[in-house]
Amino acid sequence: MKKIKLDISYLGSAYCGWQVQPNKPTVQKFLQNSCEKAFGSSVEITGCSRTDSGVHAKSFICTADLLDSANNIPEEKIPAALNVILPPDIYVKSAEEVSPDFHPRYSAKGKEYEYIFCDRAYKDPFLYGRAAFVGVLDEKSMDLCAKQIEGEHDFACFMASGSKIIDTVRTVYSCRVERRDGLVVLTVSANGFLYNMVRIIAGTLLECGRGKMTAFDLKEIIASKDRSRAGRTMPAQGLYLNRVFYGDFMGEESEE
Amino acid sequence: MKKIKLDISYLGSAYCGWQVQPNKPTVQKFLQNSCEKAFGSSVEITGCSRTDSGVHAKSFICTADLLDSANNIPEEKIPAALNVILPPDIYVKSAEEVSPDFHPRYSAKGKEYEYIFCDRAYKDPFLYGRAAFVGVLDEKSMDLCAKQIEGEHDFACFMASGSKIIDTVRTVYSCRVERRDGLVVLTVSANGFLYNMVRIIAGTLLECGRGKMTAFDLKEIIASKDRSRAGRTMPAQGLYLNRVFYGDFMGEESEE
Repeated sequence: MKKIKLDISYLGSAYCGWQVQPNKPTVQKFLQNSCEKAFGSSVEITGCSRTDSGVHAKSFICTADLLDSANNIPEEKIPAALNVILPPDIYVKSAEEVSPDFHPRYSAKGKEYEYIFCDRAYKDPFLYGRAAFVGVLDEKSMDLCAKQIEGEHDFACFMASGSKIIDTVRTVYSCRVERRDGLVVLTVSANGFLYNMVRIIAGTLLECGRGKMTAFDLKEIIASKDRSRAGRTMPAQGLYLNRVFYGDFMGEESEE
Repeated sequence: MKKIKLDISYLGSAYCGWQVQPNKPTVQKFLQNSCEKAFGSSVEITGCSRTDSGVHAKSFICTADLLDSANNIPEEKIPAALNVILPPDIYVKSAEEVSPDFHPRYSAKGKEYEYIFCDRAYKDPFLYGRAAFVGVLDEKSMDLCAKQIEGEHDFACFMASGSKIIDTVRTVYSCRVERRDGLVVLTVSANGFLYNMVRIIAGTLLECGRGKMTAFDLKEIIASKDRSRAGRTMPAQGLYLNRVFYGDFMGEESEE
C-alpha cells in the first residue's frame, strides 16, 4: 500500500462539506473519484477534519491510500494529474508519499482558521458566500476581547450544544482580529477545536465589535462553560481552514 | 414617466451577460423582474453597455423607466427594496431620479475596465471565474508596452473581426499594468471601446509580459490596423467594468 499526502484548497460553496454523504456533492467524494480515475485503482481518502457545508479551505490536508499499488504516477506529477479531473473549485497544491503511520487528523498538532466579516454598508456581490455580512464593527475592541481566548481553557462555552465530546479543554495558541482590505478578519489557531468552536467565537466577538460585550464579559463566559452565554453560531460561509500543523510545535518544525 | 438611475455591481459568472435573451439568465432580465416586483408597474431597463457572458461589473450604470408613475418608493429606499428581491450576485449600490434625457449609454463620456491575470503556478480555486490563469508575466514590460496604447488612435487592430463599426478611432485616457496582491492587473479607461477591445488589449499585453512583443511591436500593430497582428482575445472571466464617467472629462466632474 502507498500513502500519498495531498495539500488541497477548495471553495466550499458548491459542496455539502468535506465528508462523503449519499447523493450529495462533497469534496471527499470528488477527490476520491478523481484519484480513482487518475490512479486506476481503488483509493481511500482520509481528511484532517470534517468541514461543514459551505466552509472553505485554503489548505486542507488529506491522504490517499492506494489500495492497489499499481500507481506509477511520479509524486511531482500527481497534482496536475488530479487537477485536470477535479472541478475548478477544488485544487491540489502538492502531493508527497508519506509513511503508512501518518494520519492527517491524528498526526495533526493544531490548525489555524480564519473568519471573515464584511461590515460595509455595501453588500459586495463578489464576497457573497465568502464572508459574513454584518453591521459596523470595532475591530480593535474585538482584538482586545480575542486575547482572553488565548491559552489553555475549558472551552465548553464555545461548543455546539448536543456535541458529545467530554474533554473540552483546548489550547488556543493565538486569537487575533484585524482589519484587512476593509474586511474584519479573525484568525485563530489551537491544538484542537470543538464542534462549531470558531463560528461561536466569531459570533461572540461580533458582540464585542458591536459594543455589547467587553473583555471582562468574555472572561466570565469562558469561566461559566455555558454555551447559552456566548454569542450565536455564525454562518459557515465566512469560515476558512487556513493551515494544519504537524510539527512538534505550532509554527516551528511545521510542515507548512 | 419617472427615470431612475441605478448604480449596480454584479458577479457575472452565472449570467449570459447583461442583455435580455430568450430563455437565458441575464443581469438585465433579473433586474427588470425585480424592478417590476418592487415598483408594481412595468419597467424598461437600459444599460450603459452590453457586457458579455461571464464579464463582471464593479459599477454598471443603468436606468429604470417607470412607465406607470404609481411608484412611491422614496429614492433612498430603492436599493434596499431591489436588493431583497435580487439574487445575491447582483447588488444595487445607489439609486437617484434623473432627468428624462439622461441615457446611461449615450450620456457616458467614458468607461474604465480592469483585466485580472493570475500568473502563479498555483491555480487558486478562489479566483476561478474571476481571473485568467496564465504563465509567469513581467508586469513592468507590460506596463511599458501599455503606454503605447494611450492617446487617440485608430484601434481597428483591437476590434473583434466581424464587428460592423466603421469609426474605429478612440481616445484611451490611461492604460496601465501593475502587480496588486500577487495578481497582474491591467486598467484601461477610454472615451469608448470597440467590441472585445479590452480582451484583445489584454491578449496583446500578455505577449509583452511573456517577452514575445515589445513596445515597438505594439506601436506597429496599432499603426497596421490589422486585427491578426494583435494578440488573442482573452476569456471574459478576467474582465471587470470598473466605472462609467458622465462628467465632461474623465476623473473631473465625474459622477463617480
